[in-house]
Amino acid sequence: MKQIKGIIPPMITPLKGNDELDREGAIRLVEHMIAGGVHALFLLGTTGEAQNLTYKLRYEFVELVLKQVAGRIPVLVGVTDTSLDESVRLAEHAKACGAVGVVAAAPYYFAPSQQELIEYYTALADALCLPLYLYNMPSHVKVFLEAKTVATLADHPNIVGLKDSSANMTYFETLIYLLGDREDFSLYVGPEELTGECVLLGADGGVNGGANMFPELYVAMYNAAEAGDLKKVRELQRRIMQISTSIYTVGKYGSSYLKGVKCSLSLLGICDDYLSYPYRKFRSEEREKIRQALVALGCTCVE
Amino acid sequence: MKQIKGIIPPMITPLKGNDELDREGAIRLVEHMIAGGVHALFLLGTTGEAQNLTYKLRYEFVELVLKQVAGRIPVLVGVTDTSLDESVRLAEHAKACGAVGVVAAAPYYFAPSQQELIEYYTALADALCLPLYLYNMPSHVKVFLEAKTVATLADHPNIVGLKDSSANMTYFETLIYLLGDREDFSLYVGPEELTGECVLLGADGGVNGGANMFPELYVAMYNAAEAGDLKKVRELQRRIMQISTSIYTVGKYGSSYLKGVKCSLSLLGICDDYLSYPYRKFRSEEREKIRQALVALGCTCVE
Amino acid sequence: MKQIKGIIPPMITPLKGNDELDREGAIRLVEHMIAGGVHALFLLGTTGEAQNLTYKLRYEFVELVLKQVAGRIPVLVGVTDTSLDESVRLAEHAKACGAVGVVAAAPYYFAPSQQELIEYYTALADALCLPLYLYNMPSHVKVFLEAKTVATLADHPNIVGLKDSSANMTYFETLIYLLGDREDFSLYVGPEELTGECVLLGADGGVNGGANMFPELYVAMYNAAEAGDLKKVRELQRRIMQISTSIYTVGKYGSSYLKGVKCSLSLLGICDDYLSYPYRKFRSEEREKIRQALVALGCTCVE
Amino acid sequence: MKQIKGIIPPMITPLKGNDELDREGAIRLVEHMIAGGVHALFLLGTTGEAQNLTYKLRYEFVELVLKQVAGRIPVLVGVTDTSLDESVRLAEHAKACGAVGVVAAAPYYFAPSQQELIEYYTALADALCLPLYLYNMPSHVKVFLEAKTVATLADHPNIVGLKDSSANMTYFETLIYLLGDREDFSLYVGPEELTGECVLLGADGGVNGGANMFPELYVAMYNAAEAGDLKKVRELQRRIMQISTSIYTVGKYGSSYLKGVKCSLSLLGICDDYLSYPYRKFRSEEREKIRQALVALGCTCVE
Repeated sequence: MKQIKGIIPPMITPLKGNDELDREGAIRLVEHMIAGGVHALFLLGTTGEAQNLTYKLRYEFVELVLKQVAGRIPVLVGVTDTSLDESVRLAEHAKACGAVGVVAAAPYYFAPSQQELIEYYTALADALCLPLYLYNMPSHVKVFLEAKTVATLADHPNIVGLKDSSANMTYFETLIYLLGDREDFSLYVGPEELTGECVLLGADGGVNGGANMFPELYVAMYNAAEAGDLKKVRELQRRIMQISTSIYTVGKYGSSYLKGVKCSLSLLGICDDYLSYPYRKFRSEEREKIRQALVALGCTCVE
Repeated sequence: MKQIKGIIPPMITPLKGNDELDREGAIRLVEHMIAGGVHALFLLGTTGEAQNLTYKLRYEFVELVLKQVAGRIPVLVGVTDTSLDESVRLAEHAKACGAVGVVAAAPYYFAPSQQELIEYYTALADALCLPLYLYNMPSHVKVFLEAKTVATLADHPNIVGLKDSSANMTYFETLIYLLGDREDFSLYVGPEELTGECVLLGADGGVNGGANMFPELYVAMYNAAEAGDLKKVRELQRRIMQISTSIYTVGKYGSSYLKGVKCSLSLLGICDDYLSYPYRKFRSEEREKIRQALVALGCTCVE
Repeated sequence: MKQIKGIIPPMITPLKGNDELDREGAIRLVEHMIAGGVHALFLLGTTGEAQNLTYKLRYEFVELVLKQVAGRIPVLVGVTDTSLDESVRLAEHAKACGAVGVVAAAPYYFAPSQQELIEYYTALADALCLPLYLYNMPSHVKVFLEAKTVATLADHPNIVGLKDSSANMTYFETLIYLLGDREDFSLYVGPEELTGECVLLGADGGVNGGANMFPELYVAMYNAAEAGDLKKVRELQRRIMQISTSIYTVGKYGSSYLKGVKCSLSLLGICDDYLSYPYRKFRSEEREKIRQALVALGCTCVE
Repeated sequence: MKQIKGIIPPMITPLKGNDELDREGAIRLVEHMIAGGVHALFLLGTTGEAQNLTYKLRYEFVELVLKQVAGRIPVLVGVTDTSLDESVRLAEHAKACGAVGVVAAAPYYFAPSQQELIEYYTALADALCLPLYLYNMPSHVKVFLEAKTVATLADHPNIVGLKDSSANMTYFETLIYLLGDREDFSLYVGPEELTGECVLLGADGGVNGGANMFPELYVAMYNAAEAGDLKKVRELQRRIMQISTSIYTVGKYGSSYLKGVKCSLSLLGICDDYLSYPYRKFRSEEREKIRQALVALGCTCVE
């Protein structure tokens, strides 16, 4: 019944300019991740800078990636929006291009209450042409999808799972307890530092940004945890933490993670590291730190 | 040099459905406010539910209102967006329709740092075809436009003012101190409870939601404060606080203010009270409380 | 009926070491403020670093200051504590020394709900031997004393006023509206940047940290606002803002204000600038900036 | 080298009144937990309502418990305080009574910066007569002990470990990565919902409130995780989550957890459920819900 189990990279959106895709880079990145064994793709999430892109570009990117994937793995599309109707419209485009589901965080301007979230998600799921995955992202949308709210929404036939990016494991353990046995509801974890333990304890997979760069590593972690191979989990965890503490912590802003991922992909020769406003890509000093971190991880950089 | 001094109602967006304007209501509301003496209009702000509307509807609403206003008073259009290019595009439409300026809060998904805000607003102001007013709205966008950041941005030739909705008067007093003497930069206050004191101390006006319903009242407050008539200010303040503590506090959610304004306008016979998702309009119990509050204020309700 | 109207400096606690008073400095500071015309004193507030001091030192300081004041002006003592019984005990000491009232923010470790706050303050006011002033300090205690909560508590015969340090003027205007006419309840504002406008609109005075250094200035502001002399208010406001933007903004931490006040008092030759842990006093670079700011304000420094 | 590995219940403080211990209850509770196999005790933490108690009571409680334990298991004492000198003084008492270490969260009134935290904890550790465990409790003290800060402080010879109550597992994984191999530094997790996975991944134990009621359960979880018995971990996790979602979620306030633990201990016949201000114990309706939850867990209640 579950659509997807395993590693679902939240794909970055390769750009050449604020309103221009790096189409060749996007194609290379898709192939890189599929070659690495990932189980699905998630487009236009937080890591995909979705909110910063024009709708035109979002539509174009969905079309490009789905064409390139060509059914080899399932693809989810982020339709998070402050406007319900724009979410519905983007989902229609995603379906037409071949996506199998959509993902939506809460409306993120005027923060809704839990009751308003229930009404909103119900209306959204009713209107969508594809199955909906909830997305808990409190740091960006200001509201927490409380466990009770999720349990209520899980009974909607068109709501089929949740991705949690809160890093709050008490919350995630509560979701596993309440919903982990449901065959019609999937639970994925966002922060890649937690994929190992979450899968050990019953989660269905990870939506991990690092899988843009190192798809094999996160797939190996999923497999080890799924098999209950604790020794392997601990060993892979060290490498994941090395990435987390070196690639994602250059610079002093909240956007360090995003900049680190794009800068790495550029240094690995996969795609451009242009970032859409309000962010700017790393300048030479930070780029050099990323280069050194990649070398320490055993990577070969193109410059 | 200053474009606008006085009361600039953040106009609500009259709706009949989630993606359908109440066109007749919008026209009545424009006439109601102009008859009340307001000095300008501000479309597509927080009170206008801008983020919850489709772009198509936003464009249509700008066109409708500007046609109705027909140059009688200046009109500002909110272009707050997470995508810089969409802001620029909406500004072009606003200019073509006759708007004299645009207003933009910070991108509101992935919170930027102060340095990123300076780069973002500089790029935005460079690209815009109309003068830009900054909009400090920390509760909704998660970041504060710090006084130093505003002072830096105020030197950009195309950034001409700021609307502050923080209700933090230490901050606003700092802005008055740093920028109050500048003839090329205007300071407006959002919360209507503060218009009196802000204008007494040097602000250029108020962007007050209550002026949708009671335009004369807020215009009278602006005039009294501008004239330094303290006795009148204190007297009008009582009435403004009566509205604030009765109309805006029905219901228990953060959206009470928005629901109260729309419900009142419906009860006053001006326009529909449909609210776009994720909000729902007041049901009969709350509506009755609003009716009683309006009666206590001396209003005649249509039902 | 009101005990105090005017300027009530939240007195800093002059220290020579982490558990040692600067007794001579404290005496000089008391005389400096009384000579400057202040209407009362407030000991052991946030500016007094109360929470960082041992109880022994707090008791000693209360005794020292009240002996020095010797009834010339009324004195309030902060009894803010996480333990209700310790608050009651300190109040008994304060009364024995001659204080006329006590001030208490909410318990500040495990944040209580509004209902719990009502029960807590009722129990505290019942147990206290002196009149109680509420203290709204949300940034430090994590909870807001909501206007409804204050209105409920204002009916307690032993709760006689409130000091608001939120800087949220919509809130303060609501309190003026609900309680401003009560002869048995006083409203004071914390941030000195707001004393002018608050008194213009009906507040009873200001609890302003800058009055440690410049008592005459804040007394002059109170008098001008009380008399409705708008021109004078605007003129004095400029000087208050010059202090606010120069003395309180050196260094990059939240403790800049506290460090700026103590450093200034040291440079003015009034008392030692030792700060209790977790803070450390300004080192030479920051001290020089404060010296320059004082000179720009026309002060004579002792070094 | 590590003092303690395993389950360290944060003991509640049994009370008969706001300033009166339930001495018999405290003795019964100590015996209940020792009989359940716990590896150590932690007094005067958040669960112990430490901040709400007078110092006199805190000192008395430390003496009572240490006398009762009589060296059978190691005891840690919380000395979290806003005053560094009071922390040092309580530590001296704790040592005299036989405690083996102390625990301190950051000063919790005026929030310090990371640099100030480093200076504060260094001064505290220098002054203490017992080894110090750091305590990360951001929801109550408003500041996060960042991983870099902890890594710096871990080099102090008298700082020997950390208890993390953030529930943020990305953070905890970072600490395990940076410090997990150190023989002179221990890592404990607060939320009991996370003890299983934390120990699986390298933590030294759990400081779990539920171990006041069900010491055997948490000890069994520690042992299963330590042995890498995944099947057993998952099975025990279900029971821990049943407690978490039934006992700790009665009532609507943040204090529900504390009220649930004390109410349960009272229903189990162990000690009084008086709560110190600003909290009040559960009334009959909530008490009945707790009773039902205990029955569902297979417990025998005394009423």
